[in-house]
Amino acid sequence: MANNKPPSGMRDFLPKDKALREYVMQVIREEYSRNGFTEIETSQIENLDNMENSDGGDNTKLLFKILKRGEKLKLNEIPETESNLSDLAMRFDLTLPLSRFYANNRNDLPSVFKSLQMGYVFRAERPQKGRYRSFIQCDVDVIGDESNLAEVELINTVGKALTRLGLDDLTIKINDRRILKGLVTSAGFDADEFSDIAITLDKLDKIGREGIINELNSKNYDSSKINRLMQLSDALESNGIESAKVLSEEGYTNLKEIITVIEAIQSGYKIKFDYSLVRGMGYYTSTIFEVYYGALGYAVGGGGRYDEMIGKMSGADAPACGFSIGFERIVDILKAEDHKMPTGSRLALFYDVSDDLKEVMKTAIQLRETYSVVSVFVKKKKFGKQVDRLKEQNFDMFTVFSPELEIKSL
Amino acid sequence: MANNKPPSGMRDFLPKDKALREYVMQVIREEYSRNGFTEIETSQIENLDNMENSDGGDNTKLLFKILKRGEKLKLNEIPETESNLSDLAMRFDLTLPLSRFYANNRNDLPSVFKSLQMGYVFRAERPQKGRYRSFIQCDVDVIGDESNLAEVELINTVGKALTRLGLDDLTIKINDRRILKGLVTSAGFDADEFSDIAITLDKLDKIGREGIINELNSKNYDSSKINRLMQLSDALESNGIESAKVLSEEGYTNLKEIITVIEAIQSGYKIKFDYSLVRGMGYYTSTIFEVYYGALGYAVGGGGRYDEMIGKMSGADAPACGFSIGFERIVDILKAEDHKMPTGSRLALFYDVSDDLKEVMKTAIQLRETYSVVSVFVKKKKFGKQVDRLKEQNFDMFTVFSPELEIKSL
Repeated sequence: MANNKPPSGMRDFLPKDKALREYVMQVIREEYSRNGFTEIETSQIENLDNMENSDGGDNTKLLFKILKRGEKLKLNEIPETESNLSDLAMRFDLTLPLSRFYANNRNDLPSVFKSLQMGYVFRAERPQKGRYRSFIQCDVDVIGDESNLAEVELINTVGKALTRLGLDDLTIKINDRRILKGLVTSAGFDADEFSDIAITLDKLDKIGREGIINELNSKNYDSSKINRLMQLSDALESNGIESAKVLSEEGYTNLKEIITVIEAIQSGYKIKFDYSLVRGMGYYTSTIFEVYYGALGYAVGGGGRYDEMIGKMSGADAPACGFSIGFERIVDILKAEDHKMPTGSRLALFYDVSDDLKEVMKTAIQLRETYSVVSVFVKKKKFGKQVDRLKEQNFDMFTVFSPELEIKSL
Repeated sequence: MANNKPPSGMRDFLPKDKALREYVMQVIREEYSRNGFTEIETSQIENLDNMENSDGGDNTKLLFKILKRGEKLKLNEIPETESNLSDLAMRFDLTLPLSRFYANNRNDLPSVFKSLQMGYVFRAERPQKGRYRSFIQCDVDVIGDESNLAEVELINTVGKALTRLGLDDLTIKINDRRILKGLVTSAGFDADEFSDIAITLDKLDKIGREGIINELNSKNYDSSKINRLMQLSDALESNGIESAKVLSEEGYTNLKEIITVIEAIQSGYKIKFDYSLVRGMGYYTSTIFEVYYGALGYAVGGGGRYDEMIGKMSGADAPACGFSIGFERIVDILKAEDHKMPTGSRLALFYDVSDDLKEVMKTAIQLRETYSVVSVFVKKKKFGKQVDRLKEQNFDMFTVFSPELEIKSL
């Protein structure tokens, strides 16, 4: 066979890696479920029209499109456009399918719908190390709750789930789009310059205070406005959220409540106001947050409130807030740290080909009442080597079948 | 939004349906794991070449192909062939990916590899009620074991898993391709007529003894051979497996051992020799089996031994035997029977907007130590209606927050 590898940017998973992935999924599923989120599933394949006419930005340029089938596909004509060749595409995120799902099933869903969705998304990125073209996203969303209960439940649930996975140095950074807007307009910029200024502010972690000034200068903004922006930023930096009150009373009150509640209830993770947190997506309306782990320079999850998107997509307004965990990043961290999953005892039961298979199987079935894994093997001549290979597969107990069996632990 | 439904033949799943699907997956995963099978995952997208050059038969005509991207796609030329437009496709089964995976990772896998794979496959069938274009398959395979231990473990594990799911009237039908071949050649047919005769024999359940005779007559087979075939069949029908000995000594010995062991160890399911069991795929070499539930006229799973396929695909021989559970059929049965899943207590905690959210959250977190689901809701004016809606979502305990909380069960 010419090529036994999966296609470029796609992956297979060996038993050890698959076990870690399933473990992470299971912990997230259990913790979210306990907090009242219910899991849904949406189709991995969507109508191309819905995807191309979405708010997906650059992601709509990375679509895996599916060829039309049968008579719809004209092989004897010059195609001219991709739309003439394709009617479906793989989804690029879980948010668009959630909005479509919610619009389609609204009447069958509770008035406050706490959704959990875990599944593959597909993006035809240029393949490179560590960048996957098919990867799992794990999204939780509260639809229909305009109160801060949504933010608090999302942050606490994500914090708890990641803590349970053994990530013990977590910081949730939080901001409010209205404070950011207040910062920009209070400095004297026009409201329509907000997005451009925000793109620069977002880089504070990477390029520092001087870098921000240089970049804004190079964009030819008025230097007195830049100075004023930096003064206001310095105040936010040194006095924290109290300096945000003059920028947006609503944003301040909002964050103050969320931070107060989280600080009162959290255990195992920190929450921190960060005025330079921007998040790219245009659809966020107020609260935004990201979760950081240890000294890693990138977020392992993020989200915020998007009160207008559902209405735009479905024609019926609904407040909404969501948090997306970077599943692949979490798995990569646990793998790099050689995180130990809880495993039960794994027992290998050997038998000789001359043994009575039905007595061997009866013994195996009985042992399975006690041990979490019991696997039966024909005993090979090179028995020591056979045992060594099984130890590599995490078998920790070995026994040879005999009518009066005793289990010995190694 | 024009169309909020998933594409034709694709599905979304509401919380209740998703919970059932996850429950079935979890039971299968746990039972297979206990029996020593380890889960792997393969890419949902495969190289088109691998798929088209496979043994997939009609399934290769049902491919969802993926459009080439970037400069590889020539929009200003007449395409002429689909291969000029597409380089990837969605997988149509899990067996081809398993063979590719095994060939690619053989050195990292144990000499006897007991594989579990659960995942979506995609077939561009004509959409119709009950036929899905994207559905989950659940395959278990033993690669590298030529002994009947493979068959016995597969049958017992599938039987146990389905029994644990509440399916209590299961029958495993078993046959051996060598007995079928012996039947056909003993009746005087040529060996190369086997496939055609077998296609007719496979219909015994549906068209009966007379139907078989009529169909073979209409295919212009020699009537004396047909008579002989029916005599041998009648003997198998009335005397069971003992009449198979003259048709294939090897097949007889093989089935005799498997049936003896399974009858000695099974609980909750039956095993039965059925000479008319054929199974479509050409790659089976000896044992074949299917599992039936109650009076349902179709199998809910099936498989057999395919000792030559891995060698053909990977260039290195390996004996193999597999069993595939019809996941969607199992889910449909459980749904139709309104099967009750084990659910823990689900508690709704109501609070008034004037309450202190941090005290409410502290209470919720404390309750989550005891109850499997605790979800917090702002108490609405129409409280009775709110409670009724939550009962529909399987909430069975309701309580209103107060500093001295008492839980009351409804």
